[in-house]
Amino acid sequence: MQKHNFSAGPCILPQSVLQKSAEAVLNFNDLNLSLIEISHRSKDFVEVMDNARNLALEHLGLQNKGYQALFLQGGASLEFLMVAYNLLEKKAAYLNTGTWSDKAIKEAKLLGEVVEVATSKSENFNFIPKNYTVPKDADYFHCTSNNTIFGTQMQSFPETKIPMVCDMSSDIFSRQLDFSKFSLIYAGAQKNMGPAGTTLVVVKEDILGKVSRVIPSMLNYKIHIDKESMFNTPAVFPVYVSMLTLQWLKDLGGISAIEKINNQKAELLYNEIDRNPLFEGFVTKKEDRSKMNATFNLRNDQLKATFDDHLKQTGINGLNGHRSVGGYRASMYNALPLESVQVLVDIMQSIEKGA
Amino acid sequence: MQKHNFSAGPCILPQSVLQKSAEAVLNFNDLNLSLIEISHRSKDFVEVMDNARNLALEHLGLQNKGYQALFLQGGASLEFLMVAYNLLEKKAAYLNTGTWSDKAIKEAKLLGEVVEVATSKSENFNFIPKNYTVPKDADYFHCTSNNTIFGTQMQSFPETKIPMVCDMSSDIFSRQLDFSKFSLIYAGAQKNMGPAGTTLVVVKEDILGKVSRVIPSMLNYKIHIDKESMFNTPAVFPVYVSMLTLQWLKDLGGISAIEKINNQKAELLYNEIDRNPLFEGFVTKKEDRSKMNATFNLRNDQLKATFDDHLKQTGINGLNGHRSVGGYRASMYNALPLESVQVLVDIMQSIEKGA
Repeated sequence: MQKHNFSAGPCILPQSVLQKSAEAVLNFNDLNLSLIEISHRSKDFVEVMDNARNLALEHLGLQNKGYQALFLQGGASLEFLMVAYNLLEKKAAYLNTGTWSDKAIKEAKLLGEVVEVATSKSENFNFIPKNYTVPKDADYFHCTSNNTIFGTQMQSFPETKIPMVCDMSSDIFSRQLDFSKFSLIYAGAQKNMGPAGTTLVVVKEDILGKVSRVIPSMLNYKIHIDKESMFNTPAVFPVYVSMLTLQWLKDLGGISAIEKINNQKAELLYNEIDRNPLFEGFVTKKEDRSKMNATFNLRNDQLKATFDDHLKQTGINGLNGHRSVGGYRASMYNALPLESVQVLVDIMQSIEKGA
Repeated sequence: MQKHNFSAGPCILPQSVLQKSAEAVLNFNDLNLSLIEISHRSKDFVEVMDNARNLALEHLGLQNKGYQALFLQGGASLEFLMVAYNLLEKKAAYLNTGTWSDKAIKEAKLLGEVVEVATSKSENFNFIPKNYTVPKDADYFHCTSNNTIFGTQMQSFPETKIPMVCDMSSDIFSRQLDFSKFSLIYAGAQKNMGPAGTTLVVVKEDILGKVSRVIPSMLNYKIHIDKESMFNTPAVFPVYVSMLTLQWLKDLGGISAIEKINNQKAELLYNEIDRNPLFEGFVTKKEDRSKMNATFNLRNDQLKATFDDHLKQTGINGLNGHRSVGGYRASMYNALPLESVQVLVDIMQSIEKGA
């Protein structure tokens, strides 16, 4: 049975990418060797790494603008620490919009003062705070562009002269932004970019080298830049699959092309959530709704068994909400076809009709 | 053409493992979903992680002995830092046997005093120092069991009452040792265990929690243990392939079975290096020779082009020595068949005969 994969991450990837990845595990570049058993210093893999780094910058429009792209390990969780290690001298400003912001703040506090400029924590993060002030004397401002768990997404970013750092793990490459406003962007691969196991870091070089502490080698962005993202053995397979996914996106027309499809998917689902009396959205302010992760609930819990059964019968996978929100969460990452959203909407409508 | 893969790492993996890994990328456990697009919290993947952790302890004979196995990210290079973060309160003792020991020492020095108990650095690490004293008042003793670059391997370990920490990246699961002598063992997967992108850490729980510093979450072994190696999204594919490789080793008869084959391979090659007047080994003391990585040179540089040509013609891959040693390095990890070593020896003999 065909599956409709709404998983929150790791998540759906393009079929053509999966096909090529499987082939490379058996025989890479016609070498008669597997991708995962050759040296990461071989010409064939260095080319993969270079392509992946270039494609990332190209998609974000950040080529030749003083930025470097790195493929590191440890996920966004290690970036929470690395950002502070590399940038936090005295004070940093954080916007707290969810579980991941909260964790980023916790790690940063180990290395300096953290000012929380605003938070929606008391409302279980069901909206994005606005009208906050970013202190001018902070070393940097940190925010999370999309909150996977709660289904909120920042639609605008503050104007500030201090470096802006953004965790874009769950919406990078899904929509057009002026990425040059950010001095550092990081993202775990396992949403729109590839499989779990590698983390993209895009950093403007001129913000580095300004803290007085000695930074451990593996946490030091400068070292990773100097070694062209190969200070130590990189996560070969995850980087390769990310490269293929970035190439797939380019062939499709890039971020602007996928954004149109992502808008269609989000509109289709949110329209149904708003129209259908059986459902309600979790996010209180519609302008804060995420186009990647739609969180919603059945108003009547007694329909849960029937709804879940319909989901199962139609091959819908990964729709359970996160435990801190409950209900349902439809993650509609780049590789999810519009057709899958239509299947979900059809079920919501048939439940309404009592089918 | 069939390849004989002597790569130093990432390196050869069993064909059956590559086959199953490729299948899982297309359709995992008959879910009609790829291994790399399902949640790491799904029943199917949690089972993979549990299996991998259990198999690692089982192979090392460390089940029910107070040890925990973790599959982390960042490679041995991040462990250099984590070991010190978690264990170094005042002073640590390090044996310096090569590039990787040297790097481990560098990171540890950021967190406390490091006593280098012995080193062979002045001789370009061409032997393993012996007869050193491990200070009784150090927090731990750290060593590297096998030095991939130089081709040396520790055949015995000091008797000490302080916790012994060992980087076994390049010879774990290749030979029987009394692993209970070690309080912490770590190993990047990309030699005998799997593809690049995950790191095995086996740690005795009772050595943790004794330092006074606050440890950042991602560097804290206790947190990873509490979260059963899923504090954040693990490197799904590398963990899965590692699990398959550990299962392959178990089906083969475990470490004791593979050790016999590894001994045969090493004997075959070293006998030829010693017998054949055209070649000389790099390691000065034969008892320090590594059974994983044999480093050797042509005595007459003028034969290099011919030898290299023969290697290419017979499909031998990855035999170039590391730049800090030069010459040749034959890495004979678990998955390399005896037959591949025979092919190499045949070439060495035909060169001698002037063929």
